[in-house]
Amino acid sequence: MLDSLAPLSADADVAALLAARRPGHTLPAELYTGQAAWLADCRIMFGRHWISVGVACDVPEPGDVIALDIGPSSIVILRDDNDELRAFHNVCSHRGAKLVPAGRSVVGKLVCPYHQWTYDLDGTLALAPHMGMDFDRALHHLKPVALRDVGGLLFACLSDDPPADIDDLAAVMEPRLAPYDLHDTRVAFEQDLIEDGNWKLTMENNRECYHCASNHPQLSLSFHAADFGYDPDGLTETERAESDALADAYRRHGEHWQAEGLPYEAVEHTVGHATNFRTQRLIIAGLGESQTPDTRAASSVPLGQAGRPWMGDMHLWGHNSWNHVMSDHAVVIAAYPVAPDKTLVRTKWLVHKDAVEGEDYDLDNLTAVWKATNAEDAHLVSLAHRGVSQMGYRPGPYSRFTERALEDFATWYVERMAANGYGTD
Amino acid sequence: MLDSLAPLSADADVAALLAARRPGHTLPAELYTGQAAWLADCRIMFGRHWISVGVACDVPEPGDVIALDIGPSSIVILRDDNDELRAFHNVCSHRGAKLVPAGRSVVGKLVCPYHQWTYDLDGTLALAPHMGMDFDRALHHLKPVALRDVGGLLFACLSDDPPADIDDLAAVMEPRLAPYDLHDTRVAFEQDLIEDGNWKLTMENNRECYHCASNHPQLSLSFHAADFGYDPDGLTETERAESDALADAYRRHGEHWQAEGLPYEAVEHTVGHATNFRTQRLIIAGLGESQTPDTRAASSVPLGQAGRPWMGDMHLWGHNSWNHVMSDHAVVIAAYPVAPDKTLVRTKWLVHKDAVEGEDYDLDNLTAVWKATNAEDAHLVSLAHRGVSQMGYRPGPYSRFTERALEDFATWYVERMAANGYGTD
Amino acid sequence: MLDSLAPLSADADVAALLAARRPGHTLPAELYTGQAAWLADCRIMFGRHWISVGVACDVPEPGDVIALDIGPSSIVILRDDNDELRAFHNVCSHRGAKLVPAGRSVVGKLVCPYHQWTYDLDGTLALAPHMGMDFDRALHHLKPVALRDVGGLLFACLSDDPPADIDDLAAVMEPRLAPYDLHDTRVAFEQDLIEDGNWKLTMENNRECYHCASNHPQLSLSFHAADFGYDPDGLTETERAESDALADAYRRHGEHWQAEGLPYEAVEHTVGHATNFRTQRLIIAGLGESQTPDTRAASSVPLGQAGRPWMGDMHLWGHNSWNHVMSDHAVVIAAYPVAPDKTLVRTKWLVHKDAVEGEDYDLDNLTAVWKATNAEDAHLVSLAHRGVSQMGYRPGPYSRFTERALEDFATWYVERMAANGYGTD
Repeated sequence: MLDSLAPLSADADVAALLAARRPGHTLPAELYTGQAAWLADCRIMFGRHWISVGVACDVPEPGDVIALDIGPSSIVILRDDNDELRAFHNVCSHRGAKLVPAGRSVVGKLVCPYHQWTYDLDGTLALAPHMGMDFDRALHHLKPVALRDVGGLLFACLSDDPPADIDDLAAVMEPRLAPYDLHDTRVAFEQDLIEDGNWKLTMENNRECYHCASNHPQLSLSFHAADFGYDPDGLTETERAESDALADAYRRHGEHWQAEGLPYEAVEHTVGHATNFRTQRLIIAGLGESQTPDTRAASSVPLGQAGRPWMGDMHLWGHNSWNHVMSDHAVVIAAYPVAPDKTLVRTKWLVHKDAVEGEDYDLDNLTAVWKATNAEDAHLVSLAHRGVSQMGYRPGPYSRFTERALEDFATWYVERMAANGYGTD
Repeated sequence: MLDSLAPLSADADVAALLAARRPGHTLPAELYTGQAAWLADCRIMFGRHWISVGVACDVPEPGDVIALDIGPSSIVILRDDNDELRAFHNVCSHRGAKLVPAGRSVVGKLVCPYHQWTYDLDGTLALAPHMGMDFDRALHHLKPVALRDVGGLLFACLSDDPPADIDDLAAVMEPRLAPYDLHDTRVAFEQDLIEDGNWKLTMENNRECYHCASNHPQLSLSFHAADFGYDPDGLTETERAESDALADAYRRHGEHWQAEGLPYEAVEHTVGHATNFRTQRLIIAGLGESQTPDTRAASSVPLGQAGRPWMGDMHLWGHNSWNHVMSDHAVVIAAYPVAPDKTLVRTKWLVHKDAVEGEDYDLDNLTAVWKATNAEDAHLVSLAHRGVSQMGYRPGPYSRFTERALEDFATWYVERMAANGYGTD
Repeated sequence: MLDSLAPLSADADVAALLAARRPGHTLPAELYTGQAAWLADCRIMFGRHWISVGVACDVPEPGDVIALDIGPSSIVILRDDNDELRAFHNVCSHRGAKLVPAGRSVVGKLVCPYHQWTYDLDGTLALAPHMGMDFDRALHHLKPVALRDVGGLLFACLSDDPPADIDDLAAVMEPRLAPYDLHDTRVAFEQDLIEDGNWKLTMENNRECYHCASNHPQLSLSFHAADFGYDPDGLTETERAESDALADAYRRHGEHWQAEGLPYEAVEHTVGHATNFRTQRLIIAGLGESQTPDTRAASSVPLGQAGRPWMGDMHLWGHNSWNHVMSDHAVVIAAYPVAPDKTLVRTKWLVHKDAVEGEDYDLDNLTAVWKATNAEDAHLVSLAHRGVSQMGYRPGPYSRFTERALEDFATWYVERMAANGYGTD
């Protein structure tokens, strides 16, 4: 009856919307705004793929626990008594109560507050009062969640059948992250921000620096927007000179990095793969040391063996994350769906575990650039969400120069959904 | 399986609900309360019909812009460099960001805050950085919205195929509004009120004065409730005398208005038409000058050539609006859907552009009657919405004396939905 | 296409979810979390069954009115001019406005605030202005709601066809409640609490005391958790001694109660019946008088002929309520759905109508135990709801010792839904 009107309906078929996506263009509206599409995203994109879930240094000792809400779900990440990292669904096997409140805690065992069912840190059900002598506790352990520690960055997959190509991510990133020894860091500051937009708009916003010059004055001091593409025919003479100078700088730095055995080439692992990532060693702009207001190192205690500011920014984009690992600190940012139009953006600033606030680094200086950038991005994402919700919205064209990564992200998204049951054949 | 229970379901077929509407009665519950019905209303009633969107005097100079949110959509209304009024969907053709925040602004061009795509005030895409030499900007202008200025009142239609009978509205209203010269006014005060009810309950509430005597003590001073119908057999002797006196007054005023060339007859354009309106010149009660607490003119500077208080109230009901144009000021009120149970009611009080606050009029006196009336109506609409949401609600009977206009409104609504794809054949 | 993913969808078939319920286990997730299931619950469980709606002493005089919201619906309970209790849907027969705001009021007639339609207290439409001479008011009386006063506790059914077995509840409870003469009480305090969970989680939480020892320190002083089951093989020696002592106490009290003509045996009326209840006379722990911090009577004026503290706790579980009637006061608690994840818990503390606050009882002492218990339960219910919403939730096993009543409740719920159109054949 209502063919042309279907996109606004809450019940539009998500698969049909995915099939309607036009290459080179943003997604059909309801993939950003619809409840059905959002639930499908929670289930597939955040339920059957490896997603960024934090850092190993958050759980350094046996009994350290982090509980993390992901859409309607929640997981616990902990270090068990054998010093092994583990993750579980944050739900008691008895009546389904949420075991651990979101955030950090330290425990000997995991005790459900409801009826005191008690789990060892390996997930074994150790105690279940009043269940009778014939109750088989072995059948009621905590449901495990696949977890990978890649050089100190943690990735989890909530599905029982996690994609195998997390190995590719590990193979590429472990040598790149090794010099920074992220296991030897601590979280100096953590910020939670709720963006008023769909998580895919959050990710699209992160995948380009086309918007940086006009929107991120602070970030632009240490960041070369040109790293993320530009139209060579659209440059002013000054811009062309800058662009040539940057290309030269990359050649010189590349030789240097090569000599030092520091991997730097871009690696892209997006379309055609389950696990989405891209990494590259970037030159930091200005004085070149760090993403700070004065582009100098924020912390006087270098990370790992990374006491060389010219090491630049070991940059990693993941499925739901962006990471900047620098000689003096690292910024680890991840996005989690909260509602079709709400996304949690969690930022962690890591410094060497021995760095002392007020002595070795100033917290405001450490966090200034990304606090400002996150606030600016939250505003842009809210404008984007308010726009795609309108009757007048039509999918628009990506720039093939500055938004190629968005085209990849959208194509990969449609492909992954189709591969997980949302195809149309 | 659940035939008799269907009305409470969020997925009930909107077309079936429309078909179930019983003449002479209020609508089936879920047409007021359901999410699917509300989205259909946004799409059809606010998407394919001419709706009231404000006043021309809000954008008097080239570069003046008003952005107006209408349900999930938004439009910009502006005056371009050739002094022409235009409207566009408030969405960038690139990544779909909302171009202009809701409210008033003054611009040279429309620049998207996201990536600086820049549009001339006629909607032309003037600049789109980094899109490449082969990018055809002509294909990416702003999407226009049909706009009509009828004697200073603005009507827009978001669809590409707006109903032609806006010409009927213009033909009737332009001569009626001409003496007041609304282009020569300004907005002395604007009030936004969110009513906790469906937009159709807001409109039904506005379409009768059956509730006035008990609920609108202030408005009743200047308003003859009997103008909107009464049961002739139900009158007390006093009421009958009043009613006869009012009929006499209309005869005398009619002759007078006729002699002065002032149109006054009721014109109804509802059932059978796409564009819904009703107009009539009404006698103001009390001292007869204006809708104020003392029924005298609020402003000492008359509108246009309207310096004759006995001109009464040039009354206009529209699809989503009610308007009272009097010799000294005008009140322009429009309703916009916000959610199934939330409706924005925006009221603008217009005075002559040269009238000075504190000298020519007192703002509290100017706004007192409709501020009180709006608050009272908001309460009634919330009661109505809370009632129709209940399991015990059954569509009830309209009075054929005092609620004939509601019967027309409901019949017209069902007819327009059916004409736009929500029929059952 | 998406068979294995269906459970998270808002449109999952409620009947299929009900059919998927596994005996001995908690319900499938979406029966707790889904919008469709919640609406079905409002319609069936709260629309076609007898539910607890308060106490007769709330409307002691002709003209006393209580309006009670139940999910999206609302009812008025009143005492008419013939001293008869009546209930009606709280909706005007004209335009469907909500007649009476939630809470208590005193009226001569029920006058709709919208257009002054006026109803006698027996529901007759007495006045409907402007409806014309031929309007048949007899067709537009208030829609009645079935109401039963069982020993001072009120039960209502919103359906036109209420289950007949409310007679069973009356037959069992009237003699049990008679000695307390609840018609001669008044509400000393009323508390409304919104729990962040589905109403069925609220009821499941109430149906067991497995969680009491660790979560209800105050209640546990006067309440024998063992009354609600325990694993006999899991007791420590001390616990076994306590359990044996309690069994002895029940034997002694039983004889005593028997001699006094006080019914005390447990009566269960759940699976296989429309109207769900269970009652038993319980021994109060500690000093045995009342559910207070010191387990002594809170009020010095006994209820009815109940001036014997050893009468214990005449306990009644209903479909949506739990009640404790003691010699000095009664606690009447009922749950009403507000949203899939919100439930109103309303608690009334009744004392003899002549008991004077500050003289005969201290209000803080009277209310301390259940205020604390309610707050603790609200926290547990929120944990349960947050857990069952997760992707990692699987229906878990009930203890056959401590959670048998939950198994009954879940089985009865599935059975009642099936009997009302949500079956799968």
